[in-house]
Amino acid sequence: MHILITGAAGMIGRKLIARLVKDGKLNGQNIDKLTLTDVVAPEKPAGFSGKAEIATSDLPAPGEAAKAVAGKPDVIFHLAGVVSGEAETDFDKGYRVNLDGTRALIEAVRKTGGGYKPKVIFTSSIAVYGAPFPYAIPDEFHLTPLTSYGTQKAICELLLADYNRRNILDGVGIRLPTICVRPGKPNKAASGFFSGIIREPLAGQEAILPVADSVRHTHASPRAAVNFLIHAAGLTREQLGPRINLAMPGVCCTVAEQIESLARIAGPKVAARIRREPDELVVRIVSGWSERFDAKRAEALGFRAEATFDDIIRAHIEDELGGKIAA
Amino acid sequence: MHILITGAAGMIGRKLIARLVKDGKLNGQNIDKLTLTDVVAPEKPAGFSGKAEIATSDLPAPGEAAKAVAGKPDVIFHLAGVVSGEAETDFDKGYRVNLDGTRALIEAVRKTGGGYKPKVIFTSSIAVYGAPFPYAIPDEFHLTPLTSYGTQKAICELLLADYNRRNILDGVGIRLPTICVRPGKPNKAASGFFSGIIREPLAGQEAILPVADSVRHTHASPRAAVNFLIHAAGLTREQLGPRINLAMPGVCCTVAEQIESLARIAGPKVAARIRREPDELVVRIVSGWSERFDAKRAEALGFRAEATFDDIIRAHIEDELGGKIAA
Repeated sequence: MHILITGAAGMIGRKLIARLVKDGKLNGQNIDKLTLTDVVAPEKPAGFSGKAEIATSDLPAPGEAAKAVAGKPDVIFHLAGVVSGEAETDFDKGYRVNLDGTRALIEAVRKTGGGYKPKVIFTSSIAVYGAPFPYAIPDEFHLTPLTSYGTQKAICELLLADYNRRNILDGVGIRLPTICVRPGKPNKAASGFFSGIIREPLAGQEAILPVADSVRHTHASPRAAVNFLIHAAGLTREQLGPRINLAMPGVCCTVAEQIESLARIAGPKVAARIRREPDELVVRIVSGWSERFDAKRAEALGFRAEATFDDIIRAHIEDELGGKIAA
Repeated sequence: MHILITGAAGMIGRKLIARLVKDGKLNGQNIDKLTLTDVVAPEKPAGFSGKAEIATSDLPAPGEAAKAVAGKPDVIFHLAGVVSGEAETDFDKGYRVNLDGTRALIEAVRKTGGGYKPKVIFTSSIAVYGAPFPYAIPDEFHLTPLTSYGTQKAICELLLADYNRRNILDGVGIRLPTICVRPGKPNKAASGFFSGIIREPLAGQEAILPVADSVRHTHASPRAAVNFLIHAAGLTREQLGPRINLAMPGVCCTVAEQIESLARIAGPKVAARIRREPDELVVRIVSGWSERFDAKRAEALGFRAEATFDDIIRAHIEDELGGKIAA
């Protein structure tokens, strides 16, 4: 089996690659070849016995998408994209990378012809939804994004569904909840604090909480996100039906409950490293975000997130901290 | 006021132009100039005292959209597009005209700059919905189109909403129900019979009914469609809020009820000109279509369709037959 991963240098990309290399198989078939592309060169996958092709690729540039699929990968994990904040501040770049890049990729698949029909797993986002929301967002809720990023993701979902319907590819779009605990340094994303208030205290550092403890949100660990991608790759056209874009499950909890989990697992001294410093801008942005999902279809199709926020913290300690907490 | 109409040579375009010329005003302002574009040259509007600019224009072609908005029209009625059947059989043409054409138009608006912010009224379609449906489709129902045409319309709605949110334009998308009674010759659209079973008998000709009398659908007259467009042009950003794409109201009835209306208005002899000849393909296509809408938001914003199917037939007799029925 030959797998293409776009956005392979990103956080989820790297974790997915590590998992695929560790498993050696996808959908019960040996992985012979990995093609890894990104705008910066992805790392060579450590410990992979098959063939690895590494390429820098700017998908919307003429000919680039065709090059990426030239080896006719059986499965494409399309993770490439610019993030929410950048898509909002740089209008042209957001539409170019997130919309035109995805369209170029699936058009390249279409143009390949000769019966070529790969499985395409697309990472969408809960940013496709826009407030106001019902108590829990059902699978049939409309997409009224309030950012250009969410708009681009929603458009790509529609394109993917039409290309799927026309048998050009076997598509599935997965709407990732907020990924928490995101490893690495704090970033300037408005959602960054959801990870920061866990990650920094566990590393012995102070974290800022810019919103009220009562803020409710839905989270899944990076490990769960990789599980979603692997699981999506194994679903058949028949299992999915025509509605191929799915909200993923997650752990729904308040910030207060996140902090209680942290205290339970790492002790009150660690949890005390959170400093409350309200930021009106972040408060306003977060107030427009979805809180709770009723991800019935994804659950019925076997997608599983963590059961509790405790599990999310434990996954972070195992995967990122080698089991060690800075007491 | 300067108004641009794309798709001005089409059926709705011509009726909209006639109405605007008759009114002489839009939103209480005198209409000084009409710019009319289409892929074939639109007719010069009869009896218009202002300036009329007529142009053939292929919007997605380089520079064409910029030319169309060069005169900075205050209001743009964007009706141009290829129809459902053609978008399905000609993949490239459908995406090029319906998606790239719309994107080129609103991009041309964005690139104009200098505070230019027109009102843009976009004709979407109930084809943005895809079965299965609830009893009545609510305003919050998701868009899962089952045609490329519906996909293209849904994508354009998302683009329009994002450009609206960014204050590039004041947008409103109106999802037209099936237009009935469509004047002119029978066409090959799967929905053609909804109009045919009224239009042909009223003109003294036989009509074929390819589906069961129990089929339920939602209709609005061409006159109502023009009313929707005019009404949409008068709505403010504040009235619409961020959810600018709206399902329009219509008359929901069965084919049997359509035929009862025809008999009531034109007599049983006219209604007897309908011949039942089931067509399995049409039956299958129509079974995937929406039946009923709960167009709450549009109604609250003052959009009005006919109250009964009798009114729809009467509008056809007045507007197309000069009040005369072939007995």
